[in-house]
Amino acid sequence: MSSSGPCKTVLAGAIPKSLLAEVIADLRNLDNAPRLHGYLANTDPAARMYADWSAKTCRENGFDFTLHEVEREDLEDEIRHANIDDSVDGMIVYYPVFDTRRDQTLQWTVSMFKDVEGLSPQLISNMYQNIRFLDPPMNARKSILPCTPLAIIKILEYLQIYNTFLDYGKRLFGRRITVINRSEVVGRPLAALLTNDGAEVYSVDITGVQHFSRGSGLKKQKHEVRDMDGWSLEQCLPISDVVVSGVPNEAYKVPTHLIREGAVCINFSSEKNFTPDVKERAAIYVPAIGKVTILILLRNLLRLAQNRPHTNGTR
Amino acid sequence: MSSSGPCKTVLAGAIPKSLLAEVIADLRNLDNAPRLHGYLANTDPAARMYADWSAKTCRENGFDFTLHEVEREDLEDEIRHANIDDSVDGMIVYYPVFDTRRDQTLQWTVSMFKDVEGLSPQLISNMYQNIRFLDPPMNARKSILPCTPLAIIKILEYLQIYNTFLDYGKRLFGRRITVINRSEVVGRPLAALLTNDGAEVYSVDITGVQHFSRGSGLKKQKHEVRDMDGWSLEQCLPISDVVVSGVPNEAYKVPTHLIREGAVCINFSSEKNFTPDVKERAAIYVPAIGKVTILILLRNLLRLAQNRPHTNGTR
Repeated sequence: MSSSGPCKTVLAGAIPKSLLAEVIADLRNLDNAPRLHGYLANTDPAARMYADWSAKTCRENGFDFTLHEVEREDLEDEIRHANIDDSVDGMIVYYPVFDTRRDQTLQWTVSMFKDVEGLSPQLISNMYQNIRFLDPPMNARKSILPCTPLAIIKILEYLQIYNTFLDYGKRLFGRRITVINRSEVVGRPLAALLTNDGAEVYSVDITGVQHFSRGSGLKKQKHEVRDMDGWSLEQCLPISDVVVSGVPNEAYKVPTHLIREGAVCINFSSEKNFTPDVKERAAIYVPAIGKVTILILLRNLLRLAQNRPHTNGTR
Repeated sequence: MSSSGPCKTVLAGAIPKSLLAEVIADLRNLDNAPRLHGYLANTDPAARMYADWSAKTCRENGFDFTLHEVEREDLEDEIRHANIDDSVDGMIVYYPVFDTRRDQTLQWTVSMFKDVEGLSPQLISNMYQNIRFLDPPMNARKSILPCTPLAIIKILEYLQIYNTFLDYGKRLFGRRITVINRSEVVGRPLAALLTNDGAEVYSVDITGVQHFSRGSGLKKQKHEVRDMDGWSLEQCLPISDVVVSGVPNEAYKVPTHLIREGAVCINFSSEKNFTPDVKERAAIYVPAIGKVTILILLRNLLRLAQNRPHTNGTR
């Protein structure tokens, strides 16, 4: 027992099996395969790779995917057209397109009812306010969450860090989590989602540490944020059960000696944010999450299809 | 969601259902109902109540129980006789008998192969050394663990504090647990068992705090203990995910303000060691464990019957 190291390294390929089974079971309850439009309007090789990868995953799992290669000046019109095309369930745009603030406008052009990435302003606003449905008080149509943060949550569920003995929305109560990265597309939404589920989160970037919490006894419905003056990883890591890092910088490494014995460490950067000695301290180490993220994309597409009035989607 | 308090109060009556199902399924694989002898040699009303309660639980669940009311001077001979009587699978003596050190000698007279309470010297020694089988390297006959500590472990499994994603023997890795009580029959064995399963334990009694650990990366096979000079609950409780208290004193109360938000709090004393405001801080509160303990007694009896060569016990 003690002769082998205590750390379990979990590859992202192992995780989606249970998630995929759930997605495929839900898919069977729909009349038609959900249709996803991908829009590629650049020559970025990483965007092309992501497009190919989503095409492959869609086709392997019974989703209908079409890649539209368009001129970037035509893209906004293409999106508007798909917004009102009943045969399209979801859209994904492979960024960067203009690589300026204009990409934000493009993103906002995608209808919230067809946004598989969960980045529409209303969806983001729901997420930060811990509003989980699009149609309160009916609560039949689930709001869509951004893919990468949701992938990390699904990984934490898979690793049993979410305690299903506790009530839904409180299953991280008692957990302290450090998230290194506070970007608008991953780090900050992730910190909010984890806090909404009951955790206390230390959100860390180069400007400092913020504490996300729902207050004593989870009394608040949504998280509140306060600056932790003078705090750094030196204060956060030794008290954190989970460390999630996504710094897009090859030189960046989480200092292993500060990580608590038996912690769960998850890397979502394309760079390796943890050094190999993390396995000497962690109970579980997840070196990459990409394969889970792509499945979440399909899951979101399925939700969009289920949310449409003409389908007989179960939920 | 946040309008109701976040704490789940778990009554011990709710816990045994899954445990009982497991015990009854195993029972069906035996040729004969396991036979338990109870020995009552005093007029203590609590001992009588425990005897009645074990009789009732045995009979309701298909175990064969006989209460032997004997003169205390005859008890040692009775035990020796049952030790070599093939029809007897297990024995329980309702203490106190003499209420002196002589009770210890009586306890040691019970054969380790018939000791449902798991208090025989060899069984206790196995437990402290984290030796889980009676017949290494065959490992077909499980060593018997003391009832109350094992009941608390089964409760922590039920509450999903044990993470079954981790390997057996490491499922508490990363958890810090305070155990208030260091008696030889419950507190100290419990601290050892929890540490053997990967936790770091703070064992607290009136003489001070001891730290039980298997060392960095769980490198040690069994726990090591060191005194924490100057430590008290003030240091232990704020860093503990789980607080287990068993102080047999009506006046004793665990100071709620020191307990960490979202902790799991378990009381095994017959007195209430936690005040009602524990529900303002804990994620889970278990006010009593008696009903689980009695089921563990049956489970141990079943193990003893399965361990006997003449049975066709599964394991």
